[in-house]
Amino acid sequence: MSTAGQVIRCKAAVAWEAGKPLVIEEVDVAPPQIHEVRLKILFTSLCHTDVYFWEAKGQTPLFPRIFGHEAGGIVESIGEGVTDLQPGDHVLPVFTGECQQCRHCKSSESNMCELLRINTDRGVMISDGQTRFSKDGKPIYHFVGTSTFSEYTVAHSGCVTKIDPQAPLDKVCVLSCGISTGLGATLNVAKPTRGSTVAIFGLGAVGLAAAEGARLAGASRIIGIDLNPSRFNDAKKFGVTEFVNPKDHDKPVQEVIAEMTDGGADRSVECTGNVNAMISAFECVHDGWGVAVLVGVPNKDDAFKTHPMNLLNERTLKGTFFGNYKPKTDLPSVVAKYMNKELELEKFITHQVPFSEINKAFDIMLKGEGLRCMITMGH
Amino acid sequence: MSTAGQVIRCKAAVAWEAGKPLVIEEVDVAPPQIHEVRLKILFTSLCHTDVYFWEAKGQTPLFPRIFGHEAGGIVESIGEGVTDLQPGDHVLPVFTGECQQCRHCKSSESNMCELLRINTDRGVMISDGQTRFSKDGKPIYHFVGTSTFSEYTVAHSGCVTKIDPQAPLDKVCVLSCGISTGLGATLNVAKPTRGSTVAIFGLGAVGLAAAEGARLAGASRIIGIDLNPSRFNDAKKFGVTEFVNPKDHDKPVQEVIAEMTDGGADRSVECTGNVNAMISAFECVHDGWGVAVLVGVPNKDDAFKTHPMNLLNERTLKGTFFGNYKPKTDLPSVVAKYMNKELELEKFITHQVPFSEINKAFDIMLKGEGLRCMITMGH
Repeated sequence: MSTAGQVIRCKAAVAWEAGKPLVIEEVDVAPPQIHEVRLKILFTSLCHTDVYFWEAKGQTPLFPRIFGHEAGGIVESIGEGVTDLQPGDHVLPVFTGECQQCRHCKSSESNMCELLRINTDRGVMISDGQTRFSKDGKPIYHFVGTSTFSEYTVAHSGCVTKIDPQAPLDKVCVLSCGISTGLGATLNVAKPTRGSTVAIFGLGAVGLAAAEGARLAGASRIIGIDLNPSRFNDAKKFGVTEFVNPKDHDKPVQEVIAEMTDGGADRSVECTGNVNAMISAFECVHDGWGVAVLVGVPNKDDAFKTHPMNLLNERTLKGTFFGNYKPKTDLPSVVAKYMNKELELEKFITHQVPFSEINKAFDIMLKGEGLRCMITMGH
Repeated sequence: MSTAGQVIRCKAAVAWEAGKPLVIEEVDVAPPQIHEVRLKILFTSLCHTDVYFWEAKGQTPLFPRIFGHEAGGIVESIGEGVTDLQPGDHVLPVFTGECQQCRHCKSSESNMCELLRINTDRGVMISDGQTRFSKDGKPIYHFVGTSTFSEYTVAHSGCVTKIDPQAPLDKVCVLSCGISTGLGATLNVAKPTRGSTVAIFGLGAVGLAAAEGARLAGASRIIGIDLNPSRFNDAKKFGVTEFVNPKDHDKPVQEVIAEMTDGGADRSVECTGNVNAMISAFECVHDGWGVAVLVGVPNKDDAFKTHPMNLLNERTLKGTFFGNYKPKTDLPSVVAKYMNKELELEKFITHQVPFSEINKAFDIMLKGEGLRCMITMGH
């Protein structure tokens, strides 16, 4: 019996209050409206951004809310005006979108869609300003247009990428956010050449994905920088060849790297969001050709500060959002890289829990253990 | 009778003291040593950098010295080991060089030769640490390896570019420095696409050359920013379509430009060296694809400061040196652009004086009049 057009009652992990454990509840998921699709989520993983907005320290609190934005699922039904997706399609929902109409979507250089760009403060759908989730008639807010900690969710079709149905969703799920962000930062923005030296600041999942990008690009030296030395052993699996802990040195880490590399790294990718690491990442690249790429999200009041001669000596400083991938146009090619065994994803998935134990995934992340915890729905 | 191997006695404009008028003297010019060439200078023009080091306010004073670095001439003789130049070649001496051996010269991305990169503190030749200029046996220092305010000069062959002998030296002379710097900043680094909007900060010779680059690239809007409104009329000849004087507005000029351009210019080029203009030039470009290029040389203690979100929103910040042109490899193609009438140079040459009146060229520049003063040698 088709569920299209019907309200679906299913399980969702609801965050009722900031920082309090999620509660698995029976919620109602309304049918998709114009330009929306309803998805059955099969797998979802936990990313720092979920934890960040769940903790809501310094962020606008918006509760009750259903978090989750790294996921893989299947289209259950489509709303009016949706032409590029149909029920049964295998998809990745993405926290940012592609309307394919705005100046950004029409530009080959940008992926920052004007209509569907990430908005962490919005808890409702764009078309009517309402939520599609409710419990006992009371609305539950969405998160970045995905809310994948639910057996069913509704998303704008511009935020849903159709992928190869052969791709295992419990693996490619992680391409919805962090892994693509790091990978694309290196492959699409830093663009190291074969044999070059790449410095990666921060060896969490995003930084290791940036290292994986450097490995794919054929970099011969991949220097990992992190304050936590326990991360180096795992980092080797991602192609990191050398490790620098800024705490081990009296001089600034950019000087340490310049000495190791005869003047500077060819490329650097900053994945911590710490403004001093950003400055080091910029100043550690070689004059003449060095390119530094910023990925990590800074605090509101941070200032990036450097002497302009560092720029005039022909260094380039760029930032990236979602690795410069256009979600609908480009993600299928990243899935293809996994399918043809160029890109390894298994090593990013260090933990697994059933949906009923989703709070364990939060505990693991808060302890700083592992990289990605895969959450299997329906259990 | 050949002068090769002989000391040549000729006229040179010697700066005996900081800020004092140059004096035309009879000086001795020694023959070129290993990897050097001696040039007969036919035309030279005055650039701000000459005036800056002649004034020697805050710079290391080095006197007596022969300034001058924008010039056109003919090879008189060559030293040992010079294989790519011969007597009679028409050439442009350049303040920076290309050894063609170092990592920078071998990189397609850099023009900052390790051996011959500009060095404003050095007043001697690299091979033996001596000067080739003297008067009554006492040495006179060189300036940036060119010292073109002399009828004859000696330069490292890596700083001398052979050009089309048909090219009029009294025009292409200006390509030795400022004009190529601005032109290349736009064409090689900012790379605006046809129909795009380019903001140029500073409408002196370098900024107008950047505007000329934007015109050649087919930009449809070229916005000139300058504190001096008298510059706008002339700027129209260089393709500038709109003018913004920051003094006319209460809000920061980057906000004015964002309003004029529906979110920001596609590209910007900063040619003033003022650090606040650099920050404005960066913050005035559009998120998603904007590229800001810094050309102007800052003060020693300046700090470039911006919120890192401006970078993370996919803006790019780059600096350039000599417009990213490799002097020997690339300048002949810029001369060719002039010869095939793509690039206009006449409009940059607003004044002319004979060599005997070279101090007038300094007066004109100090008054802020015109763009380039062409100095004809042998008069």
